[in-house]
Amino acid sequence: MTIERVAIIGLGLLGGSVGLAIAEYLPQVATTGYDASPETRQRAAERGLVGTVHDNAADAVADADLVIFCVPVGAIADVAREMAAAIPAKAIISDVGSSKAAVSQALAEALPNNAVVPAHPVAGTERSGPDAGFPALFRQRWCILTPPEGTDPDAIAEVSAFWEALGAKVELMDAAHHDLVLAVTSHIPHLIAYTIVGTASDLEDVTRSEVIKYSAGGFRDFTRIAASDPTMWRDVFLTNREAVLEMLGRFTEDLTALQRAIRREDGQALFDLFTRTRAIRRSIIEQGQDDARPDFGRGDH
Amino acid sequence: MTIERVAIIGLGLLGGSVGLAIAEYLPQVATTGYDASPETRQRAAERGLVGTVHDNAADAVADADLVIFCVPVGAIADVAREMAAAIPAKAIISDVGSSKAAVSQALAEALPNNAVVPAHPVAGTERSGPDAGFPALFRQRWCILTPPEGTDPDAIAEVSAFWEALGAKVELMDAAHHDLVLAVTSHIPHLIAYTIVGTASDLEDVTRSEVIKYSAGGFRDFTRIAASDPTMWRDVFLTNREAVLEMLGRFTEDLTALQRAIRREDGQALFDLFTRTRAIRRSIIEQGQDDARPDFGRGDH
Ligand SMILES: NC(=O)c1ccc[n+]([C@@H]2O[C@H](COP(=O)([O-])OP(=O)(O)OC[C@H]3O[C@@H](n4cnc5c(N)ncnc54)[C@H](OP(=O)(O)O)[C@@H]3O)[C@@H](O)[C@H]2O)c1
Ligand SMILES: NC(=O)c1ccc[n+]([C@@H]2O[C@H](COP(=O)([O-])OP(=O)(O)OC[C@H]3O[C@@H](n4cnc5c(N)ncnc54)[C@H](OP(=O)(O)O)[C@@H]3O)[C@@H](O)[C@H]2O)c1
Repeated sequence: MTIERVAIIGLGLLGGSVGLAIAEYLPQVATTGYDASPETRQRAAERGLVGTVHDNAADAVADADLVIFCVPVGAIADVAREMAAAIPAKAIISDVGSSKAAVSQALAEALPNNAVVPAHPVAGTERSGPDAGFPALFRQRWCILTPPEGTDPDAIAEVSAFWEALGAKVELMDAAHHDLVLAVTSHIPHLIAYTIVGTASDLEDVTRSEVIKYSAGGFRDFTRIAASDPTMWRDVFLTNREAVLEMLGRFTEDLTALQRAIRREDGQALFDLFTRTRAIRRSIIEQGQDDARPDFGRGDH
Repeated sequence: MTIERVAIIGLGLLGGSVGLAIAEYLPQVATTGYDASPETRQRAAERGLVGTVHDNAADAVADADLVIFCVPVGAIADVAREMAAAIPAKAIISDVGSSKAAVSQALAEALPNNAVVPAHPVAGTERSGPDAGFPALFRQRWCILTPPEGTDPDAIAEVSAFWEALGAKVELMDAAHHDLVLAVTSHIPHLIAYTIVGTASDLEDVTRSEVIKYSAGGFRDFTRIAASDPTMWRDVFLTNREAVLEMLGRFTEDLTALQRAIRREDGQALFDLFTRTRAIRRSIIEQGQDDARPDFGRGDH
């Protein structure tokens, strides 16, 4: 890897984690950072999320080999356009946005003279802001790169090596396919979680305090997901509209079938589905994407 | 508490955890146990889930002050009927079933001469069987008692004190109301999780291996819930059919509204819902029903 200077634009959960991970796993690499909000910049400096926090974007990117946009996907196009003049031609451009087709196009249009290698580290928590990041976020997680056809292979190799150095496993994918895969594994789960938490908050016959008290029966896992950043997720659904609606249609069909099975007291249909779904869980644990300890680490407290 | 002997029928996750919790928090109380499966009985004896594992149910309950049925809710009626002759009249009858109206009625009918105090500890994991239990399962969790009108207040007090000794917080509730509350906080979340995991397993344009690899974006939390025991959950949906269908109807309405907001690119509607849902999460963490650490304990490994 020949990247020596990384500029991080947006110093929240993702930007902060990238900065901290570089400090831990690539200590020879210098980092600069910028965030639109002065409070975030101050907190980022206090936590040392990057080596130098700049008060304007142009200074942050001035000498960068790699610029990573870590802002909500709906803001990436504007931010890239504003900084275009300040970004050196040598700099590779990347991002961490959760939807990729719209973002890849926006980056290519805003920065036609730079190599663009869009990235999505499939790692996150429901927290956001400059206090949320931690260096191990990407360890053992996949990072999907979606370089447009014709992208300089050296730039792709550089960005791959960068993410591998932070502990991630890298995979290349077409942007449109990424958006379909993530609609299933991330966007629809978030949409459903937001919905059920919303439904539960609005009931008359069950109080909100009951919902909170008895959340350990399954609901609390949904509230964790539904506590994710509203701006980030609004942007994801607006930029990945078609794949999300397509997958939502299939989910709704399956839910209707299950509803019918309950209405008809078809215990066998319920049992069959509930049995099929266990295999996927086993594979996820085998592949290190989750934790199977019986107490989920509760005993560690 | 004057309970000196507890008989546990069904030595899986819940039965095993009750046994281990008694050994830890009520060491003066003697425990006996029975399970329909010889393999489970053997494993239960090896792990010491109860003081004495009996090879037939009648011996296990012979001298019990408290009998707790820890079998799937669909099996409780049969098991109670079979054991009725062997259960002493002094014994208080309880259970841990996840739905309560049907179970309460079945227990009262099968054992008309005993005090019946149905219980539901709102605590669990997706694992099952004799290796799944651990003594801290009930700590800081709510246990809902749904004694029918006219139940001996002393029996209710005994069962309350018992669960409190195991670390739980106890609440009394009408069985029908319990079933409505848990439909929202537990049954519908499980149904939705089973559905989305089923949907994701059956796609042609996204492979199963992709679903597994990129599950850290939210999907893996659903697979955890959808790995729960199929028999247990089939029984829950069959015994709490009406409340589940009622709540499912409300969820579907809300999901349709969100789908429309995405189709119309109504970012404000999405943002508003995604903001509202954060408050509930905060309350759940404040009340100790979940863990807010940024790495969810990953750093503990
Ligand atoms: N959260 C996840 O789990 C996750 C996982 C994978 C990828 N991602 C992607 O990562 C990106 C960042 O998400 P995040 O979770 O890190 O969100 P975050 O914690 O809210 O951080 C985003 C940061 O960007 C700043 N920002 C917003 N607009 C800006 C602008 N025009 N110029 C400069 N800074 C700006 C925000 O500033 P303020 O201080 O003004 O808010 C905030 O500090 C998103 O594209 C998201 O899709 C997120
Ligand atoms: N899992 C949760 O998160 C959770 C939470 C709260 C309440 N509950 C409730 O707890 C109860 C037990 O669930 P669990 O999670 O402990 O399930 P589990 O781990 O599968 O244990 C159930 C045990 O009952 C045994 N059993 C089944 N039918 C029986 C019968 N007729 N006579 C004697 N034993 C029989 C099973 O034997 P085999 O060895 O033959 O399978 C199994 O060992 C259910 O009513 C459930 O609704 C569960």
